[in-house]
Amino acid sequence: MRNITTLTFTALTLLAAIPASAEAPAAKTEHGAYEDWRLLGVSHRLDKHYVRAILGNDAAIAAARSGKTKPWPDGTIIAKVSWKEQTHAQWPQAVVPGEFAGAEAMIKDAKRFAATGGWGFAHWEGKNLVMNDAEKSAACFACHTIRQEQDYVFTTQ
Amino acid sequence: MRNITTLTFTALTLLAAIPASAEAPAAKTEHGAYEDWRLLGVSHRLDKHYVRAILGNDAAIAAARSGKTKPWPDGTIIAKVSWKEQTHAQWPQAVVPGEFAGAEAMIKDAKRFAATGGWGFAHWEGKNLVMNDAEKSAACFACHTIRQEQDYVFTTQ
Repeated sequence: MRNITTLTFTALTLLAAIPASAEAPAAKTEHGAYEDWRLLGVSHRLDKHYVRAILGNDAAIAAARSGKTKPWPDGTIIAKVSWKEQTHAQWPQAVVPGEFAGAEAMIKDAKRFAATGGWGFAHWEGKNLVMNDAEKSAACFACHTIRQEQDYVFTTQ
Repeated sequence: MRNITTLTFTALTLLAAIPASAEAPAAKTEHGAYEDWRLLGVSHRLDKHYVRAILGNDAAIAAARSGKTKPWPDGTIIAKVSWKEQTHAQWPQAVVPGEFAGAEAMIKDAKRFAATGGWGFAHWEGKNLVMNDAEKSAACFACHTIRQEQDYVFTTQ
């Protein structure tokens, strides 16, 4: 029933996104390959006023479900998708996604990214996953360093 | 690359869940079939102190991405997965999932559930999707009635 394909990083960037209308619930991202990934977690950043979904590629989901995340295996990609927080128009007790605010990624390759804990930091530009420059990567890693014991990942629940 | 199978409601309840360790990121649900579904939205219920992920089966995702949600087609199932809110242990500006608090479903069958807007209300008991009793269904429908113009679904942004 379930068809899990091992996707390479290169192949992921080529995945065609499904067209979406502006009114559709799943339409508020920029249609990167992560849209078809499965859920690892959610968060609400009270300081930045963002709500987020944390998604994983097949390697990430397999690692998470088998508890093999110390370290996460090479090939893992974790996506952090952010929207501006918004009060639901008809249910003000609920904070829900507003405007799409970007999608970022952590890519595990212990050798390639040895200088930053084995993780490469990237972001999606439309459908394309683009590596961050050195300055931005250093900024990402600086915050993630406090999670060294959890292999630098905040989502561990 | 993508393999979408049309799953029947019966088949969904038979889907085997992937074993998960208590430490794994994706381990805090009760392993219903919805764990492999794709994301429709997230929410933070400030009154109930829950954070939530809204997931859809293949029919739901196809409808959402093509903008055909007025009405959602028969066969749609939308899952609302809830966790108690929790402050992240190392990043207190972030509200993240704590204890798993249940998973509920809306099942679209315009004929079968005509009395409640075409939606059946259900919940997962472990891997099994169980229809709510009449009293509970009436309570669900009572709140969803204010969303009649959006086919009774809150997640439409």
